Amino acid sequence: MINKFQFKLIKQSSKTQARVGEITTPHGKIKTPCFMPIATAGAIRSLDFKTLSDLGADICLGNTYHLNLRPGDKIINQAGGLHKYIGWQKPILTDSGGYQVYSLAKRRRITPRGVEFQSHLDGSTHFLSPEKSIKIQQYLGSDIMMVLDECPPSTANYDYTKKSLDLTLKWASRCKKTHTNPRQALFGIVQGGLFEELRIKSSKETQKLDFDGYAIGGLAVGESHQDMYKVLKYTIPTLPEDKPRYLMGVGTPENIAEAIEIGVDMFDCVLPTRNARHGHLFTSEGIIRIKNNKYKNDFSSLDDQCKCYTCSNYTKSYLRHLITNKEPMSMCLNTLHNLTYYINYIANIRNRI
Amino acid sequence: MINKFQFKLIKQSSKTQARVGEITTPHGKIKTPCFMPIATAGAIRSLDFKTLSDLGADICLGNTYHLNLRPGDKIINQAGGLHKYIGWQKPILTDSGGYQVYSLAKRRRITPRGVEFQSHLDGSTHFLSPEKSIKIQQYLGSDIMMVLDECPPSTANYDYTKKSLDLTLKWASRCKKTHTNPRQALFGIVQGGLFEELRIKSSKETQKLDFDGYAIGGLAVGESHQDMYKVLKYTIPTLPEDKPRYLMGVGTPENIAEAIEIGVDMFDCVLPTRNARHGHLFTSEGIIRIKNNKYKNDFSSLDDQCKCYTCSNYTKSYLRHLITNKEPMSMCLNTLHNLTYYINYIANIRNRI
Repeated sequence: MINKFQFKLIKQSSKTQARVGEITTPHGKIKTPCFMPIATAGAIRSLDFKTLSDLGADICLGNTYHLNLRPGDKIINQAGGLHKYIGWQKPILTDSGGYQVYSLAKRRRITPRGVEFQSHLDGSTHFLSPEKSIKIQQYLGSDIMMVLDECPPSTANYDYTKKSLDLTLKWASRCKKTHTNPRQALFGIVQGGLFEELRIKSSKETQKLDFDGYAIGGLAVGESHQDMYKVLKYTIPTLPEDKPRYLMGVGTPENIAEAIEIGVDMFDCVLPTRNARHGHLFTSEGIIRIKNNKYKNDFSSLDDQCKCYTCSNYTKSYLRHLITNKEPMSMCLNTLHNLTYYINYIANIRNRI
Repeated sequence: MINKFQFKLIKQSSKTQARVGEITTPHGKIKTPCFMPIATAGAIRSLDFKTLSDLGADICLGNTYHLNLRPGDKIINQAGGLHKYIGWQKPILTDSGGYQVYSLAKRRRITPRGVEFQSHLDGSTHFLSPEKSIKIQQYLGSDIMMVLDECPPSTANYDYTKKSLDLTLKWASRCKKTHTNPRQALFGIVQGGLFEELRIKSSKETQKLDFDGYAIGGLAVGESHQDMYKVLKYTIPTLPEDKPRYLMGVGTPENIAEAIEIGVDMFDCVLPTRNARHGHLFTSEGIIRIKNNKYKNDFSSLDDQCKCYTCSNYTKSYLRHLITNKEPMSMCLNTLHNLTYYINYIANIRNRI
């Protein structure tokens, strides 16, 4: 059936564990490895969805926690679902709120039932259980849903991480039971911190629940690059070949390239969009900090290897002028370029595999 | 010669003083009546120039005062001129800094030689004379330049306004003498406050200097709508038929429609862009304040008469969500719609004349 989630492994590199694949969803196909730009509350900061589509993004990511607070999953459901509401007809992945268990640690309390959040907007109390996370994601109608997990910080010790993992496994099972819409895929999340034994256990137990894909969570949460690399090296080979693998929240172009070589297929990260707003621009010559005085008279394009609207029409001098002058257009042009850079960077790796 | 500034009167309404015309500049033609979106420091707030062009704008406006402070006219000149620097190949009009003599009244001192400004950015001192204003505008390379004038507030009395007008006339003459680039047109500005005698004098004396077009300045500076209307009624008929007439800084769609009937050809105003940022959206059903709670569940489009990207893809509920959530995309979508509304509003009037 064409509407159902599918993953096809197209090619396996002969030199590394890198792979080329294709995910099929009710809203179209996604070539992997892929990068998923983040539309937290249903909008990319400073980039419209038509431009995002034109620059080659196959999928974007929405945050359940934020969308549930504003505008509310019921409103989005009444509007005909998230795709229609935000004007993006390609695939969408929604996270579960699990990352906010980590990032909003001071505003939440974990119990076996779920997580109680104090809204970062108005302090009101919101309860998120595994069942509720899936129900919200079903209301939103994303193509790929994530299970609710606890994402412990990289400094968590063995005992805490083990206990946390047990909770995450129970929640994964409850998410799976709540999942009823066959048009939506559900991914499990492998946790276990920096402990090989726990990662392997998490991988095996999560697979027993039989998900449509597997994410590696609990990385990019403060650990060193070496630690992240080690975890991937022993975790990824335990995952099934015929399911997509998603490394959550990673990362720099270099980190992504490395992770692809270990066999990861999907990525999301705030870096290209957040750094764009701060004027840190990714180019084929390295990162350019466009606020720097030396670009005042620099009439060359940002990246002569890039064909995006920003690089085709503007000089470093103009881009510096916009950010110095706090023009909103600065964020738009910088975001457009950084996302183009990420999407093309991964497309080039894919073509080389 | 095709590159030279020309104004062709195409049609004169039989019922009113409204007229249809066409301005030719080295960067293309402008159908009049026209609206000129404001790109103060070389960027439309929250709208890229490609989209601005696509939605039908024939010309945009840059501010000499702001561009001179940042990035500086010399940098823009080195970059190959304002058109190239900002990536807009259609006509550009630059103002002279005269409006800032009014709007930054607390930060400037007027002398016969010119105006001394304290920069609104860093407090540094900048001197703007008629000669310097024209030289900067020639450095920028705009298609239409404006003379430096003093724009007194609507509360100025007869004596002050008369004295101010004499200064403006002297400055106009000095601007005219400084103007050397035949590819750039230069417009005179009629001042005279709310005093018919002074307006008539200003109109006659300014015309003696023989400019390429005539602006009405010193309106939309605090006076009542009735006063503005009166001034236009007795001033416009004193202007030559074969030159374009530009009403500076006006206004609401209704004000523009009225002024067109009196014979005005060109308009600029911050309203569509500024109001967009505050969520005041112009529609065929009147102004919509999109922050209003009642739009939370309103899944209709903003304006079903409008075919812009915003109205074609989004509901009022989504637009409300974006502005409530302070998403930068809110400014982009709202600005795109408001400017489309203005451009189409005037195009419809033009078609009816």
